[in-house]
Amino acid sequence: MSDNPTLLDIDPSKLTIVRAEPHVLKTIPPPETWVFGQSGSTDHMLIIEHDPEMGWSAPVIKPYSPLTLDPASSVFHYATAVFEGMKAFRGPDDKPTLFRPEMNMDRFAMSAERIALPPFNKDALLALIKQLVLVDERWIPSRTGYSMYVRPVYIGTRPTVGVQASTHGMIFVIMSPTGPYFPTGFKPISLMARHDFVRAWPGGTGEYKLALNYAPTFKPQQEAASQGYQQILWLLGDERRVTEVGQMNFFVVLKRSDGEIDLITPALDGTILPGVTRDCILSLAGTHVPDASSPSSLSTSTRPIPRLHPQERQFTISDIVSWLEQGVLLEAFGTGTASIICPVSKIGWEGKDLILPEYEEGVGPVSKALWERIVEIQEGRRESEWSVKCE
Amino acid sequence: MSDNPTLLDIDPSKLTIVRAEPHVLKTIPPPETWVFGQSGSTDHMLIIEHDPEMGWSAPVIKPYSPLTLDPASSVFHYATAVFEGMKAFRGPDDKPTLFRPEMNMDRFAMSAERIALPPFNKDALLALIKQLVLVDERWIPSRTGYSMYVRPVYIGTRPTVGVQASTHGMIFVIMSPTGPYFPTGFKPISLMARHDFVRAWPGGTGEYKLALNYAPTFKPQQEAASQGYQQILWLLGDERRVTEVGQMNFFVVLKRSDGEIDLITPALDGTILPGVTRDCILSLAGTHVPDASSPSSLSTSTRPIPRLHPQERQFTISDIVSWLEQGVLLEAFGTGTASIICPVSKIGWEGKDLILPEYEEGVGPVSKALWERIVEIQEGRRESEWSVKCE
Repeated sequence: MSDNPTLLDIDPSKLTIVRAEPHVLKTIPPPETWVFGQSGSTDHMLIIEHDPEMGWSAPVIKPYSPLTLDPASSVFHYATAVFEGMKAFRGPDDKPTLFRPEMNMDRFAMSAERIALPPFNKDALLALIKQLVLVDERWIPSRTGYSMYVRPVYIGTRPTVGVQASTHGMIFVIMSPTGPYFPTGFKPISLMARHDFVRAWPGGTGEYKLALNYAPTFKPQQEAASQGYQQILWLLGDERRVTEVGQMNFFVVLKRSDGEIDLITPALDGTILPGVTRDCILSLAGTHVPDASSPSSLSTSTRPIPRLHPQERQFTISDIVSWLEQGVLLEAFGTGTASIICPVSKIGWEGKDLILPEYEEGVGPVSKALWERIVEIQEGRRESEWSVKCE
Repeated sequence: MSDNPTLLDIDPSKLTIVRAEPHVLKTIPPPETWVFGQSGSTDHMLIIEHDPEMGWSAPVIKPYSPLTLDPASSVFHYATAVFEGMKAFRGPDDKPTLFRPEMNMDRFAMSAERIALPPFNKDALLALIKQLVLVDERWIPSRTGYSMYVRPVYIGTRPTVGVQASTHGMIFVIMSPTGPYFPTGFKPISLMARHDFVRAWPGGTGEYKLALNYAPTFKPQQEAASQGYQQILWLLGDERRVTEVGQMNFFVVLKRSDGEIDLITPALDGTILPGVTRDCILSLAGTHVPDASSPSSLSTSTRPIPRLHPQERQFTISDIVSWLEQGVLLEAFGTGTASIICPVSKIGWEGKDLILPEYEEGVGPVSKALWERIVEIQEGRRESEWSVKCE
């Protein structure tokens, strides 16, 4: 994968596993206390380092421990950092699985290339991540809604402050236990639409999973919270195009005059992250047939789902206003690895709240049916090539 | 400076200095080998850490050494990182000085606030940086064009991967020897104008010195280099506004019909870094009187400088094309801490090269006069409140 054939690529056959001594293994906290990203780390981590002379080092899985880095390392000065987020589940055969991990690996490599980090072999990295999952598989509960979150990170470690691409790099993978985003049932979230803070821009980096897309969102997020909104609906340009919500892709569910349903999400125009869950939603919606006897039919216990017409195209906050006035906007939701689907209750815009339809369960039937199907596949209760065994 | 009065702020009176043992002090490389950002570090560094429970720790100056950080630290995942760049010189009285350091401290604090890092006391930090410069003052040569580059960095160290502001932080300051940007006389650089890659945009972070503004520039910079251009001229929007050049602010020098000179740089509209050198240029140009007997008169050995009219306003690449056609564009240059002034020879745009006037010395008279005045002040050969003693 390297441009220079004399450099070593990542080689899983050279993996060394240094297991934590049994007496220092952590006590797994009770799953009901797990909060996404806040429940500490598992016992082990994976590290692979790149040097411009040698290429990629022999991979090491070792006890979770601090990183030791030169203060001049590129990542501290120029934000050469890429990450991914994926989840490991326990299948019905008790074996650990990952959900569509090759999509994460593709995006990880594309993101690294965008900030000129040295290239790496995606298949080799995935093979190593599977090994890491197996080493810490005791952390994956067989309990619906619970999983082990896997966080690959790639940082630039060139140890000089000259402003240029990092010829040195380090990939590390850490993991943490994670529970359901909505432990006590769906709770739709409130959004504050903002056009003055802009998440991503044509010619920028919105379509890559770069660390640098996140730091600028914290301040507007804090401002939204101080005004009682939970996330930001990011608008772009004079036309106030809708792009993403918080750190999620965004979908709207519209009733058509023929009784069928349009499921619309912003097109991948360079400002939108190509989310794995986003892709799942589009794919499941496209193959859904409104006939409960079909294996690809989506449904909820309460009502059948009409035919869905998934569309990737631009729309604006004015479109949302107009759809609400016409009474055709049935549901809106964010999608991401943490929540899968996160329903929206209202959108603050120009000093008013746009109120979305309310549902008894906190989630509309289309959102719910899509959510259920993805969870079934993730947890191995439905066969799918999206679920990949770690072995 | 903290929002929470119970938290400790940075306190220079608590500074501990742990000096490197004499036998491990580095040998200072010969100044003629010094390359900006590539000549290693001095002997010591400053570290101060912030914890949401306690506030800022007692500051420590200690031998330059690696940082030890939790792999879940915010900076690796969400690019919570700010930096500054400033230079220490040796004055005629042999005492170390810093050049307009309060401007760097103001920007450092504003940048930190933009990405929701905990606040800090700017005066206290500057007092500590002065102490660090004094500890390593043997690295500052008394040789024109040479200095010690000072790099303050502020990173988020919150050790959990939940996507939110970093409540934990670390400020560290490292230093490195640096020589003249043009060791053998001015060499004007070639630019490639790009509008497809965008450095900064309205509602983004271009006006802050954030690590995250830099990583996205490496790939387009490599592409420009592969086509024979040294830096990128960053354009913005459908109108192709000129914003910055490489990592520098950008100026054009225009001949007016009355024989005087317009000195134009893009206005600080949110997409432009408020550079210290940029500010110096505007200030020196504004006070220049074309009378060699005035103390604020700028001049070169070869010719007098007409009256200068500094202007901060938007202009486009089409304006540059038109100014060249009219024969009024005399000089163009970038400004920054590394080069001070970096003259431009040509700009690649739409498959053609826009050729700027050539000068025997590699630099035009206005650029040269401004450069000379700044260097005189930096090196203490001319009295100015811009030069601040470390004591």
